[in-house]
Amino acid sequence: MGKPGLAGGAQGARELAALAQTVCAALAEGAATRGGPLPDGGPQAVAARLTAATGPALPDEGTGAEEALRTLVREMAAGAADPADPHCVAHLHCPPLAVAAAADLAASALNPSLDSWDQAPAATALETHVTEALAALVYPAAHAPQALVTTGGTESNQMALLLARERAARAGRRPVQVVCGANAHHGVRRAAWLLGLPRPVVVATPSGVLDPAAVDRVLHGLAPHTLLVATAGSTDSGAIDPLPALAECAARHAAELHVDAAYGGPLLFSDRETAKLAGLDAAHSVTLDLHKLGWQPVAAGLLAVPDGAALDPLGHRADYLNAADDTEAGLPDLLGRSLRTSRRPDVLKIAVTLRALGRTGLGALVDTVCDAAGALAERIDRHPDLELFARPTISTVLFRPREATDDDIAELRRRLLYDGRAVLGRARAGGRLWLKATLLNPRLTAADLDALVALVAAAPAPDEPGPPRLPHPTHPFTTEGTTPR
Amino acid sequence: MGKPGLAGGAQGARELAALAQTVCAALAEGAATRGGPLPDGGPQAVAARLTAATGPALPDEGTGAEEALRTLVREMAAGAADPADPHCVAHLHCPPLAVAAAADLAASALNPSLDSWDQAPAATALETHVTEALAALVYPAAHAPQALVTTGGTESNQMALLLARERAARAGRRPVQVVCGANAHHGVRRAAWLLGLPRPVVVATPSGVLDPAAVDRVLHGLAPHTLLVATAGSTDSGAIDPLPALAECAARHAAELHVDAAYGGPLLFSDRETAKLAGLDAAHSVTLDLHKLGWQPVAAGLLAVPDGAALDPLGHRADYLNAADDTEAGLPDLLGRSLRTSRRPDVLKIAVTLRALGRTGLGALVDTVCDAAGALAERIDRHPDLELFARPTISTVLFRPREATDDDIAELRRRLLYDGRAVLGRARAGGRLWLKATLLNPRLTAADLDALVALVAAAPAPDEPGPPRLPHPTHPFTTEGTTPR
Repeated sequence: MGKPGLAGGAQGARELAALAQTVCAALAEGAATRGGPLPDGGPQAVAARLTAATGPALPDEGTGAEEALRTLVREMAAGAADPADPHCVAHLHCPPLAVAAAADLAASALNPSLDSWDQAPAATALETHVTEALAALVYPAAHAPQALVTTGGTESNQMALLLARERAARAGRRPVQVVCGANAHHGVRRAAWLLGLPRPVVVATPSGVLDPAAVDRVLHGLAPHTLLVATAGSTDSGAIDPLPALAECAARHAAELHVDAAYGGPLLFSDRETAKLAGLDAAHSVTLDLHKLGWQPVAAGLLAVPDGAALDPLGHRADYLNAADDTEAGLPDLLGRSLRTSRRPDVLKIAVTLRALGRTGLGALVDTVCDAAGALAERIDRHPDLELFARPTISTVLFRPREATDDDIAELRRRLLYDGRAVLGRARAGGRLWLKATLLNPRLTAADLDALVALVAAAPAPDEPGPPRLPHPTHPFTTEGTTPR
Repeated sequence: MGKPGLAGGAQGARELAALAQTVCAALAEGAATRGGPLPDGGPQAVAARLTAATGPALPDEGTGAEEALRTLVREMAAGAADPADPHCVAHLHCPPLAVAAAADLAASALNPSLDSWDQAPAATALETHVTEALAALVYPAAHAPQALVTTGGTESNQMALLLARERAARAGRRPVQVVCGANAHHGVRRAAWLLGLPRPVVVATPSGVLDPAAVDRVLHGLAPHTLLVATAGSTDSGAIDPLPALAECAARHAAELHVDAAYGGPLLFSDRETAKLAGLDAAHSVTLDLHKLGWQPVAAGLLAVPDGAALDPLGHRADYLNAADDTEAGLPDLLGRSLRTSRRPDVLKIAVTLRALGRTGLGALVDTVCDAAGALAERIDRHPDLELFARPTISTVLFRPREATDDDIAELRRRLLYDGRAVLGRARAGGRLWLKATLLNPRLTAADLDALVALVAAAPAPDEPGPPRLPHPTHPFTTEGTTPR
């Protein structure tokens, strides 16, 4: 075995180029071995195959870079649930763009760390530049909008609650009381727990979205200085709360408003879809997440605020990173833009994607997946054996076989998973359990949608053998003029 | 511009292979443009060059994948502080191994998300397997050691404090009181703030490490059920607190012990260095960070515990991710292994590195950088114009020109930065400011060390022009038998 090379510098770039080819070959080999949306056999079989193929995780002696990459990357690809497969549609788990994944390689190789300027000179400038532009998309009329880069919607919501907690504390007020809908992301209550805040008051959402009249009653009964958390794109159904009415309601009660637009936020890229987010810029903070509708590898979260001064409570000094005399001498730092210290420049892949596609290119991808969801919903609605929950708001479609019980549906989902045939999600809505298809793949074809419908409609009873895996044809999902990207 | 391709599947792997070559070429080009450890000109010049070269961050129309990658990756490389350069030695900011950066590309392309099995079948198994092995390295005698994967030492310490907070809460005790040394990482007090805990009691560390007698006095005056945080490898000097004595002291007062071994932890890989961590396994939890001495791209943090049951307070249920009936049916999930929801498999690059190098290969790298630090300290100690603070414990060397004031030293560091000639750190120790060289580059040569010493010793007075950049020769830093890797 040779000496392990470094990724940095001109020499490292050459070494990395060779190893990247090994990785891509292993990815292709693993995908071919898998031959479908996920490996078959279920959790125990997948774990057993991985262990058999790889052996001890920390051997005394190494096998060298080439062998280790070939073996482990191949096994990871063979054992992946690949969101680029047309039948992997369970979650807000997008197929990343090749350009974004490639850009992420440069982040790994250069390894800038954003906690001090002298670890990340250009990356510091790039993050500032890109987050300003994205915050301006959310807050077009604001004077000095800014955004934090986070590990995802969950951390963005944590930061929103933390900023609200600190605003209350600095004003000498009582701990902030969070109010959210039953449709809010589970991370909101977890964030309150993390931060030592009172348990959130949860407003029922029988229609799938917050009812401003119900929120009004709840806020009326609470002390002022609550934080209302609304959702623009719920995890279960993609529903968007009525933002303008909620913003008015919050203002009436002197409550603050945070909008979790982790899923829906990128509708802003689309001239056609952006109107669904009217009222968003009335929020004190907005969660975005470009590893959902932004086609980024995880992590690509953001928290936007209309004025960067709102981020001041995160300000932090550590003498070895941003000593006062260095700051006075003009050395900038982003230590106060995160609770992490070392921090990967996730902004690079975002910046490259924004430049490669432009706003309109991203908007076209958004339109494409929204169209695909509409087309899937139509097919389900027309199908005699399937029931559609509702027309999709964004790109999530809930449906179920008409004759099935909730238990049947949970079992069907698991069977499709264990057989390696489809990755479908599940959601409870209107008191019943539904299958969930979250369409984030802009390359889905009409035939893919037909095949997905057929797969569920033709699902055998639990004791029958399943049909063979379906082929994945390549025609566009609609022939009426929408260009698939 | 063509349609943007996805990274997944066999087709995506081919597209990615082509784009990865573009990235590596741009990395090489940017490194050549930079021609040193960091760009010259200081923060304003770096930001101005970036903006001039790239223009608006969110253009309406895109430029395509190739152009965007070429432009932004080249500018990021040209504007990087590259830890693979021999004169970029400020921080615990390592030059990543090419094999680790390449493995990280597969994580971006496959995009498994560890919050549910159906987004990450093989990755779920791999994380479980690798974290068990690393936890067993920390706790060799424990029955069921486990570890969380985190974004770094800062989050690991947050999680340690959170677990302590929850242990106290579940036992109906008062909020846990954190006690740490003045040498502890700044993230410890920030974590207490985040979690709503009382401000940590800070024990002075005039010798650079916690004095067990001083800790004994502090713990004696506090209620029981405090959490003592010790440090194995301080950020400023790499000092290691006396762990066996502190463990005894904590036990005597019924205090819990957490050890922040973010820097020092990987000494465990080295047969020669591991004894410095004797007593580590007496801790209730241990922070490790493989993006320091483990040569990983950020992020690669870990929090190890002797018994996986200690992680139960993080348990969390979200119906769409881990419904009770799915769990009963045998679907595993790692939702309770993090406070994030979507979560990138940072474990993949770690797994590939462990397999490629083996424990002994990583241990050899550890030995090499410790030797380099020893050799640098010797050169400084011998130099008539330089003063050495102390022999290094791990790989950090503090030193200063004999005649310089603290202000001179801060100014010298900034001038070397702004001139693009060296990235040195700073640390306060013994009441004075020192230059800090944190050696994490296993390819440093003897000539590199000589050049670094000469650069500081020959530093001109503030109003003189600096000497030209020094060449970077390639001889090993010592000729007495240590093989550079």
